[in-house]
Amino acid sequence: MSKFLCKKYSSLTPYTPGEQPKERKFIKLNTNESPFAPSPRAVECAGEAARSVQLYSDPECKRLHAAIARLYDVDETCVLCTNGSDEILNFAFMAFCDDEHPAVFPNVTYGFYSVFASLCRVPYEEIPLCDDFTINVDDYVGINKTVFIANPNAPTGIALSLDDIERIVASNPQNVVVIDEAYVDFGAQSAVSLTKKYKNLLVTQTFSKSRSMAGARLGFGIADPELIAHLNMIKYSTNPYNVNSMTMAMGIGTLEDNEYTIDNCRAIIQNREYAARELDRLGFVMTESLANFIFVKHPKIDGADIYAKLREQGILVRHFSKSEIDQYNRITVGSVSEMKALVAALEQIVSEVK
Amino acid sequence: MSKFLCKKYSSLTPYTPGEQPKERKFIKLNTNESPFAPSPRAVECAGEAARSVQLYSDPECKRLHAAIARLYDVDETCVLCTNGSDEILNFAFMAFCDDEHPAVFPNVTYGFYSVFASLCRVPYEEIPLCDDFTINVDDYVGINKTVFIANPNAPTGIALSLDDIERIVASNPQNVVVIDEAYVDFGAQSAVSLTKKYKNLLVTQTFSKSRSMAGARLGFGIADPELIAHLNMIKYSTNPYNVNSMTMAMGIGTLEDNEYTIDNCRAIIQNREYAARELDRLGFVMTESLANFIFVKHPKIDGADIYAKLREQGILVRHFSKSEIDQYNRITVGSVSEMKALVAALEQIVSEVK
Repeated sequence: MSKFLCKKYSSLTPYTPGEQPKERKFIKLNTNESPFAPSPRAVECAGEAARSVQLYSDPECKRLHAAIARLYDVDETCVLCTNGSDEILNFAFMAFCDDEHPAVFPNVTYGFYSVFASLCRVPYEEIPLCDDFTINVDDYVGINKTVFIANPNAPTGIALSLDDIERIVASNPQNVVVIDEAYVDFGAQSAVSLTKKYKNLLVTQTFSKSRSMAGARLGFGIADPELIAHLNMIKYSTNPYNVNSMTMAMGIGTLEDNEYTIDNCRAIIQNREYAARELDRLGFVMTESLANFIFVKHPKIDGADIYAKLREQGILVRHFSKSEIDQYNRITVGSVSEMKALVAALEQIVSEVK
Repeated sequence: MSKFLCKKYSSLTPYTPGEQPKERKFIKLNTNESPFAPSPRAVECAGEAARSVQLYSDPECKRLHAAIARLYDVDETCVLCTNGSDEILNFAFMAFCDDEHPAVFPNVTYGFYSVFASLCRVPYEEIPLCDDFTINVDDYVGINKTVFIANPNAPTGIALSLDDIERIVASNPQNVVVIDEAYVDFGAQSAVSLTKKYKNLLVTQTFSKSRSMAGARLGFGIADPELIAHLNMIKYSTNPYNVNSMTMAMGIGTLEDNEYTIDNCRAIIQNREYAARELDRLGFVMTESLANFIFVKHPKIDGADIYAKLREQGILVRHFSKSEIDQYNRITVGSVSEMKALVAALEQIVSEVK
């Protein structure tokens, strides 16, 4: 143990991001990236912004906040952009969780929630999912804790209805409910409209998935202005210029070209349905995913084996060693050709077992 | 007081960034930005990277770390890049300060140190500068706290020698000493070479000033691999993809074109000397700044008045209301024409008083 590191962090276990292999070209279906390049308009805006980065970026993100507010029909004071949505989730753990407001989230969900809770040193409860990987909404009704729910959930892809979300939000008026909608654009219902009705609801989204901007790092939250003001206080106490000028310009360009995003989401939904049909044919079992990934297992082949055999064939997917889900793999929905390559590889893996 | 915000943050006072006026065109000498656009090579690299931001950025920043390591002649494991140098300073407060390792820094310095300390809820001591705004090195020798020193200091621009830095580092072997070299490229000596000799030294730098990348957000730290590993643990527990792909590519492009940076620094030093001579002629008093700003007062004109009158004339500088320095203004060294406009405006202000 180092004499320099604070004792409070001596047992902190950081988040493990998906592999970013450099040594070899993989079909990369492990980090839920979009198979589509960013919108040409977005690329143009970023390139233009690059020319004048000798000046600081706008710490208030005025133009980008206005563009998001327009798209989601909320006031600009209800929006806050961050360096990826991980940052706003971290801010939410900082601002809204403590001994009096412990955190609560499903035991199978985005792995970063427990890391944030540990980092902020706040107590947290992990509620088991049902056997079919659905969230039992009643578990969260009136729980009187700060709730974090990914909707659709990761890595299962299963979504709650807007009515279910509203039950949770309405029944916890003393606590903030955070709905993490990183994957909402692929078929689930957004809870943004509820932020006008409930002062305790924070909806977070990201430009990483549906908007093809994972590498640009842009997330945002929508909530009542009072919650946004609290999150802004954290932002201005950690990194006032948290969003760089190129990313900000690119976000604006992406929103100007919203049809491009809608078309891409439609294509990914089609590819998801194609992959689901084909994997069903091969005997795979899967959840009903509304995200840009599928979550699958094969009754006769170990999950870690499938991961390893796909990797041998040059296809990278995500396997989690957590016991509840270690028979499954989370597979990003990519392009048509990527999905065809996946199906072919799995067909071979299955045929070797029979 | 909101029922949602954690009590521990109820009295947090965030950092106030310099104005980013949008309503009117100013000569902007208030946030120490470079008057020079980023290197054309850097702009080209950023534009190229923008085309493939559908993929996550490399969380390990391998190529950028290697480029920095080459320039500063250290091992790649001694480098960590962040979303601006504010982020690595925040990480250092998180990792290396607690009740057992209180923070210490001058009472007049970068205003963010006290904000970070408050945010992390660690005790901190602010040691008064000498009357001439220099740091009394003996105050920090063997102080047995986590030391934060900006070198050159802000907003004074006064630098410590490498020998003085080494005395502080060598005499506090149980504590981390952070030397914040945001402004080091304009004439001061860097302490990077000492990181090979001392395991408790963290040197932070930024691409914001000398490298014309304020809006791109890129900072970094150089230290013994053990300190870097601790900071990485914080990074991977907050935001693993903290540096976006465009900024990363732009940083690499900037380092490939290092002559451009060196030439720009030389020009800024010349412009600083020009401005200092002219302001001296007008009766201004100033510190011996080795940064890209000057820190000046006039014996007959109130500091806040100078700020306001310059603003009326379309020139924005930075005035701090803190009593120790409220007679001074911090003025960024800009281009030749900006410095000429500054001198002309101050000449008029001074003539009105006589």
